[in-house]
Amino acid sequence: MHQERAQRILKALEELGAEQMLITDPMSIYYLTDVYVQPYERFFGLLLRTDGHHILFLNRLFHVPQEVGIEKVWYSDTDPVTEIITQYLDASKPLAVDKDLKARHLLPLMESRAAAGFLNGSLAVDRTRGIKDAEEQAKMIAASEINDAAMARFKTLVHEGVTELEIAAQIPDIYRELGAESCSFTPLVAFGANAADPHHEPDNTPVKPGDCVLFDVGCIKDGYCSDMTRTFFFREVSEHCRTIYNIVRRANEAAEALIRPGVPLCKLDAAARDLITAEGYGPQFNHRLGHFIGLSEHEYGDVSSASDWQAEPGMIFSIEPGIYLSNDTGVRLEDLVLVTDDGVQLLNRYSHELEIIDG
Amino acid sequence: MHQERAQRILKALEELGAEQMLITDPMSIYYLTDVYVQPYERFFGLLLRTDGHHILFLNRLFHVPQEVGIEKVWYSDTDPVTEIITQYLDASKPLAVDKDLKARHLLPLMESRAAAGFLNGSLAVDRTRGIKDAEEQAKMIAASEINDAAMARFKTLVHEGVTELEIAAQIPDIYRELGAESCSFTPLVAFGANAADPHHEPDNTPVKPGDCVLFDVGCIKDGYCSDMTRTFFFREVSEHCRTIYNIVRRANEAAEALIRPGVPLCKLDAAARDLITAEGYGPQFNHRLGHFIGLSEHEYGDVSSASDWQAEPGMIFSIEPGIYLSNDTGVRLEDLVLVTDDGVQLLNRYSHELEIIDG
Repeated sequence: MHQERAQRILKALEELGAEQMLITDPMSIYYLTDVYVQPYERFFGLLLRTDGHHILFLNRLFHVPQEVGIEKVWYSDTDPVTEIITQYLDASKPLAVDKDLKARHLLPLMESRAAAGFLNGSLAVDRTRGIKDAEEQAKMIAASEINDAAMARFKTLVHEGVTELEIAAQIPDIYRELGAESCSFTPLVAFGANAADPHHEPDNTPVKPGDCVLFDVGCIKDGYCSDMTRTFFFREVSEHCRTIYNIVRRANEAAEALIRPGVPLCKLDAAARDLITAEGYGPQFNHRLGHFIGLSEHEYGDVSSASDWQAEPGMIFSIEPGIYLSNDTGVRLEDLVLVTDDGVQLLNRYSHELEIIDG
Repeated sequence: MHQERAQRILKALEELGAEQMLITDPMSIYYLTDVYVQPYERFFGLLLRTDGHHILFLNRLFHVPQEVGIEKVWYSDTDPVTEIITQYLDASKPLAVDKDLKARHLLPLMESRAAAGFLNGSLAVDRTRGIKDAEEQAKMIAASEINDAAMARFKTLVHEGVTELEIAAQIPDIYRELGAESCSFTPLVAFGANAADPHHEPDNTPVKPGDCVLFDVGCIKDGYCSDMTRTFFFREVSEHCRTIYNIVRRANEAAEALIRPGVPLCKLDAAARDLITAEGYGPQFNHRLGHFIGLSEHEYGDVSSASDWQAEPGMIFSIEPGIYLSNDTGVRLEDLVLVTDDGVQLLNRYSHELEIIDG
């Protein structure tokens, strides 16, 4: 059990007015206990209590032989799991739950009045996870170093006639050769007009001269994720594409230049978005500027116009402006950044220069 | 939109006292609309209404170009999604939600009194999905035919010194060669004492003479899943293991022999469990007898001592008794079965005979 992390969560929880919280996001439980379980449809939960009597609820089919330093409560498929949880709750006090608790468990807890009210306490966990401690920062830096090295390899895979899928299929092995455990998400490789869909899945499209070649890729190292996007061009680049590329690059760098403790995250989004809008491509930048990342590839926390968070030392998030032109092209430039005590450290050092692949 | 499936769900919903239901399980939405989205942390929902005005809620980042035959409501990352949903709800009537709706969406809907009460209406969806229509049955049969053929290939991969991981790594390609899209879950390959953990993950253990060789594997064909377990032995089998194997086989066949419309599913579990218990291994059969399966590898619906369902024509579920002896061995024998109008059709025809692999 990572007691220091639990204490940070419990302190935030008290500010929300709760003394007990049921956590069900497997990654949040891993963050606190080092126990990783993929529970599928079964219940897996960690009850945090300010009195320190924390409980881990486990199905007998989960394989967790190690000591965790807190009480384990095992149940079987035929046991009434919400009744078992209820035995460990203080029914006279509110229960915070996390945002991932499912209706199948929340509704019965409500119906049996297992607590004096229910509130979404996810912020207590998510804001804690959003501030990486020193051990986490070191792992995130290492994961992004691998990603930088991997990007240099990926671009060498592009040659006449190769398809997106053929390149994507080689990416996991390259990550493993470089020391990563796996991809942090399905690699996105998009050529030409396919890049106009920010979530395009690699297909059998072959590359052709003049295409943009977009890689949005990441790996997992020691459990922590990297995530970076670079957009190259194959053999030649039109003036139109060069213009788009440079707008996106300036938007990325304008946002990154503003990062320091205290800056509202919505101002980072605005810096990139205003620049793109002024060039006439506002509607073609149709997503938030960035997201938090750590044990999960997407963690809670937005860098968007709706964010009311301020940057704090230890936060790690992406900065990824893009311009997407239907049936034409797409450009995105994404780095992970770490907020430091007095500014920012870019975790990705791979160049922002426009690169043409001769392949 | 599969109107006939929607009508079956709405009819079941009315029996629960609800006229509107918010479905968020991506597979249930796919089942009804043929739209598949992996939403990650974003909201993706289908509102079914008895007045026929169904709504699909989509984030602008989801790629759903096709017509669905119902209204699509798009929202952006910065939009207040629960407020948008609320506009389409009848606040004077209860809202059924599915078991997967997350607290992050359920709690705000409750706080804004978006409906006159909230109930878990998953049974209406899950029981409907649990009865496969003719088109689904044909696809499930095809997926299991591939699985039978694949099992015959997998056993040929076992030879002196090979590790679980080396075999597991070859399984996806074999499925694709046989016409499947992918694995339906991470292939489980376990040798000897490793098989004593029903959820063992393949590792670098090499096979040795006398080991059991357990394959729990499945593929996806046309979107539908197969799932089968066979336990072989490498080069030789001890009398002890042969005895265990035959108990498991008899338990499997005792349960399968009982299947016909009207039989309570708990009686199937009892038939297998009583037989294993009578042989002294009751505690070593530490999971339910089976689970439902279809678009998802594990669908709602248990074949367990706690099940109060009766078999109905069109149901497809697994029958998978096992005996797990710590630090020793494990045996499981799993088929998928289809309940027919007058009995049962085994979807797996791969032999139940004890097989020794000479490799």
